[in-house]
Amino acid sequence: MHIAVLGCGQLARMMALAGLPMGMTFSFLSENNEDTAPVAGLGPITAMDESLTSSELYEALGKPDVVTVEREQCSLVPLKRLAEHCAVHPNPQAIYQCQNREREKQLLITCQVPHTPFVSVASAADLHKAVSELGYPLVVKHTEQGYDGKAQWRLYDDKGVENFIADAHFELQSDQAVPYVAEPFMDFEREVSFIGVRAANGEVRFYPATENVHKSGVLLHSVAPAPQLSSELIATGQAGLKAILEHLDYVGVMAMECFVTSDQLWVNELAPRVHNSGHWTMHCGVVSQFENHMRAIAGWPLGSTNLQGAAAMLNLLGVELNQASQLQDDVALDWYNKSVRPGRKLGHLVLTDESPAAALARLQPLKQKVYGAD
Amino acid sequence: MHIAVLGCGQLARMMALAGLPMGMTFSFLSENNEDTAPVAGLGPITAMDESLTSSELYEALGKPDVVTVEREQCSLVPLKRLAEHCAVHPNPQAIYQCQNREREKQLLITCQVPHTPFVSVASAADLHKAVSELGYPLVVKHTEQGYDGKAQWRLYDDKGVENFIADAHFELQSDQAVPYVAEPFMDFEREVSFIGVRAANGEVRFYPATENVHKSGVLLHSVAPAPQLSSELIATGQAGLKAILEHLDYVGVMAMECFVTSDQLWVNELAPRVHNSGHWTMHCGVVSQFENHMRAIAGWPLGSTNLQGAAAMLNLLGVELNQASQLQDDVALDWYNKSVRPGRKLGHLVLTDESPAAALARLQPLKQKVYGAD
Repeated sequence: MHIAVLGCGQLARMMALAGLPMGMTFSFLSENNEDTAPVAGLGPITAMDESLTSSELYEALGKPDVVTVEREQCSLVPLKRLAEHCAVHPNPQAIYQCQNREREKQLLITCQVPHTPFVSVASAADLHKAVSELGYPLVVKHTEQGYDGKAQWRLYDDKGVENFIADAHFELQSDQAVPYVAEPFMDFEREVSFIGVRAANGEVRFYPATENVHKSGVLLHSVAPAPQLSSELIATGQAGLKAILEHLDYVGVMAMECFVTSDQLWVNELAPRVHNSGHWTMHCGVVSQFENHMRAIAGWPLGSTNLQGAAAMLNLLGVELNQASQLQDDVALDWYNKSVRPGRKLGHLVLTDESPAAALARLQPLKQKVYGAD
Repeated sequence: MHIAVLGCGQLARMMALAGLPMGMTFSFLSENNEDTAPVAGLGPITAMDESLTSSELYEALGKPDVVTVEREQCSLVPLKRLAEHCAVHPNPQAIYQCQNREREKQLLITCQVPHTPFVSVASAADLHKAVSELGYPLVVKHTEQGYDGKAQWRLYDDKGVENFIADAHFELQSDQAVPYVAEPFMDFEREVSFIGVRAANGEVRFYPATENVHKSGVLLHSVAPAPQLSSELIATGQAGLKAILEHLDYVGVMAMECFVTSDQLWVNELAPRVHNSGHWTMHCGVVSQFENHMRAIAGWPLGSTNLQGAAAMLNLLGVELNQASQLQDDVALDWYNKSVRPGRKLGHLVLTDESPAAALARLQPLKQKVYGAD
């Protein structure tokens, strides 16, 4: 079973590291001079070249049985070309739906999934409408740019709105896609994510929901199972994600990020791929999100998504690796072999314990050790 | 952290697959035209060439920080040469002790570890002495050859002894090492193994003891924790393995195979390396034997050896891979990418459950599925 992955970052790396033990082999397709260090040594790397025909691209990747992606913000052109020769999972249409926040919102509406209220913003008039419908503060998000909290603006008053309109130059933008969505500033209590996997035969499984804490828009740590999440909210989340997976005829892992306010769940974002908030599954579940993604896209039976005990995951953001101090008895290290830059996701630590509370209690000193006192 | 492994089989493969996620890189040293398919793609492979100087060998392997081995039957020459430039774990003297059954027996005596009775056999007279001391049937084992039950002879009577003496040609053998050991045929109830790991700082940890079932001298399946093994026998086994690790100033994983008769433990064999009977630790323990070996030799803190639930492991011997039928919900597959030959170790399956009995109950139908009815 030979798999080609579009993208060469840590998610591609961890997919390969999950597939290699099962006898899979890998090749990687890089775009836009991306850093390929995370997948170096795990299989041949081909740089995307739009002049390649579909056959040439297929052959350059070693005639994969299946093609998958590590990110939704990618060119669909090579995926559509490769789909002439082999399976592409998730399917390009599913990726297309999740590439744009506005299309994603429409998908949530179609699938009747509870989501953050929003107004599509393609003009100054739309933004004024958003203010009157949603009030201040308003969060405006670019529909196609932005990752880890980038390309988002908080507007607190009319002055902010006017400044945004001046910068946005709506009058110059093509009308091919809605450029922004406006949302109310959600005064949420916490963020949780659901990670599901759908097999080729339609079977759907979920990992226990995970609670996530972000810092400057970037995931800092997670704990699973999400403490004190009611069975009603879990059922709502899983039903929503299942509806989406089935609507898209999706094969593989998908993550769904949600805000939780008092007793309600609001879906904020979908990721048609393995997800940072599921990294703990590598060290605590029976079969990790990465292995289940590989099993699903290969057409193999899914593995158990049951959690054994509890886990906490700490992202290593912009810090040098020091295994001797960061690794402990029940701490696992995954390091992505990237060069160190401030704030960059360089690796993560996972610790396991008997309960989420016990895992969280041990996460705090680990965080201090890695990042120093708050 | 760059690691060179002497050997290119499945144990080298699984050590690399455990080290890669933590950011380690690998190179491999092959001997005697061995099949290198299991490590293909995991790092550069250098063929052993005795004409290389120690510096040339060190550079050919990419200047490793640490060198380790996947087997005890290897040339110590490259290891001693590499030890001039970097750490070698386990140390060559420890490997030397375990390369020869007679030296291994002497080690067990030194460390006061309960072991199968034996007589060293370098002459016909020695063999006659063995008969009078141990009686029939007698098992004669070559001290340096043999793996998975090969190079062993069962002698049932005087005629068998005379035939063996005629074939052995004691008079022609050099006296550098004792060529054989004779042991009584052990009417054991079962076989168990202990896997321990010793860190660079001297800390020693053990995985739960594993019960092993062999077929034609080759491990067929294991279950862990070994059912109904008394705490006294566990303590005896762990104390013995600890004494050996400390005596040898050993760093890394060592396995100790034992016979169990009624209420006694008899150490049969040591393996100065990761071991087939510990493959279940990849899918059921917090930190696998492979990861702990890598942590130990790198000088990093050990990981937890606690088992979560129970596990059963089934070796895939000489069978074609069929993931769709072999993989199930709680079954993990490790495939070594070797070509299929009768009886060859090609991969293994691990299933996890709540108790050894539950795991064993599920192992039987899995075995039938893989090998057909007994």
